[in-house]
Amino acid sequence: MNKKGILTVVSGFSGAGKGTIMKELLKKYDNYALSVSATTRAPRPGETDGREYFFKTKEEFEKMIAQDELIEYASYVNNYYGTPKAYVEEQLEAGKDVILEIEIQGALKVKEKMPDTLLLFITPPSVEELRKRLVGRGTETMEVIESRLKRAGEEAEGMDRYDYLIVNDKLDICVEDVHEIIRGEHLRSFRNAEFIEHMKAELKGE
Amino acid sequence: MNKKGILTVVSGFSGAGKGTIMKELLKKYDNYALSVSATTRAPRPGETDGREYFFKTKEEFEKMIAQDELIEYASYVNNYYGTPKAYVEEQLEAGKDVILEIEIQGALKVKEKMPDTLLLFITPPSVEELRKRLVGRGTETMEVIESRLKRAGEEAEGMDRYDYLIVNDKLDICVEDVHEIIRGEHLRSFRNAEFIEHMKAELKGE
Repeated sequence: MNKKGILTVVSGFSGAGKGTIMKELLKKYDNYALSVSATTRAPRPGETDGREYFFKTKEEFEKMIAQDELIEYASYVNNYYGTPKAYVEEQLEAGKDVILEIEIQGALKVKEKMPDTLLLFITPPSVEELRKRLVGRGTETMEVIESRLKRAGEEAEGMDRYDYLIVNDKLDICVEDVHEIIRGEHLRSFRNAEFIEHMKAELKGE
Repeated sequence: MNKKGILTVVSGFSGAGKGTIMKELLKKYDNYALSVSATTRAPRPGETDGREYFFKTKEEFEKMIAQDELIEYASYVNNYYGTPKAYVEEQLEAGKDVILEIEIQGALKVKEKMPDTLLLFITPPSVEELRKRLVGRGTETMEVIESRLKRAGEEAEGMDRYDYLIVNDKLDICVEDVHEIIRGEHLRSFRNAEFIEHMKAELKGE
C-alpha cells in the first residue's frame, strides 16, 4: 500500500484552535511534519531559519515565484509569505504527513496545484459558540468585533470547498478526529492506484 | 452536525474475511446495523424472518421490484436476492451506520441510487497472499482454483470504483480501519451541508 505522506491543509475560523490542535497532533504522533513557510519579513528574536520560517530577501523570494518553487504565496503588510514546494515534497516522499495551516485562498491554490491535497476545516460546534468566540469577553471594541464577524462570514463561504469539517468542541477528541481522518485517507483507492494496478496485472497474468 | 447514519457497502475478494470483520465490528460498536436482505429462497432451519432475511414469495418480491422498493436486486440459482430500501432508510434515519455486504455489480447499483453510499473494498495485503488464499491448501481441484482466480480477476477490475481499499492483514487492525473510516466519513463536508448552510446564513444575518 501507499507509503507516501499526505499533504493536509488546515483552515478554520479564527479562534477555532487550529494552532493548539496542530501542536498536540505533532506531540502525540510522529508521522506528521509541519510545512515551513518562506517569508521576506525579518526574523524575530529566537526564530531560526528553516524552523519557524525560511527567511528570504525580496529578490530571493521573487526568484522562487519566477521559478515556480512555491505551491502558493501571498503578500501581507508588504511582506511575502509562501509554501516552498521542495520542502513539502521532500517530507511527503519520506512518508511524512505534512500539515499546512493557511487560509482559504491559499488552500484552494494548493489543491489546484496538488489535487491529492486534503482540505480540513476546523469549526466551533455551533453558530452560538462561534459568535461567542468572535464577540469575545465584551472587552473588544465594536470595530474589532465587526471585522471578526466579517472575516468569519468570508471564511464560512468557503467551508464546502473543504473535504472535511472538524468540530473543535473538546481538544483531545478533535485531535483524534484529525488523526483518524488522515489515517483513513491513506486507504483511499485513488491513493493506492499502484497497488490496484499491480493486483489487476498479476491476476490477469494467471 | 449530521446525525444520520451512513450506508456502507463492503465488497472484496473471496477469502478476504469480510464476514468476520463485519461480525467483529457489530460486536465491538453499537452504531452499526447489518442490512437485512429480502429473498425468495426458502428459510433454512434456525433462520428467522427479518433476522437472516426477509422471506418473500416470488410474487411479493416482483411486486417490490415493480414498486421500486429495492435498492438493488439480483437472481442466483432461480431465487431473487435484494436490499429493501425501507429497512435501510429506517436504520439510517435512526442514526445507525448500515453495513451491506454485496458484490461489485450490486455495490455500483446502490451507489447510483444512493450517491452518499460509502464503498469499501477488502483485500489481502499482497498479490502473493491473495494467490495463496485462492489456491488454498492444495486440496482443491484445478477447476475450483481456476474459477476462483477468474472471479478474483473480475473483482479486481472494479477495485478502483470503491472509495477505500482496506487491507486485511491483522483482523483487529482491519476492524479499526473500517470503524475509523466510517467515523471520519461522518465529518465530510458534503454530509454536513445543513450545518454549513446554517452557519453561513447566521453569519450573513449579522
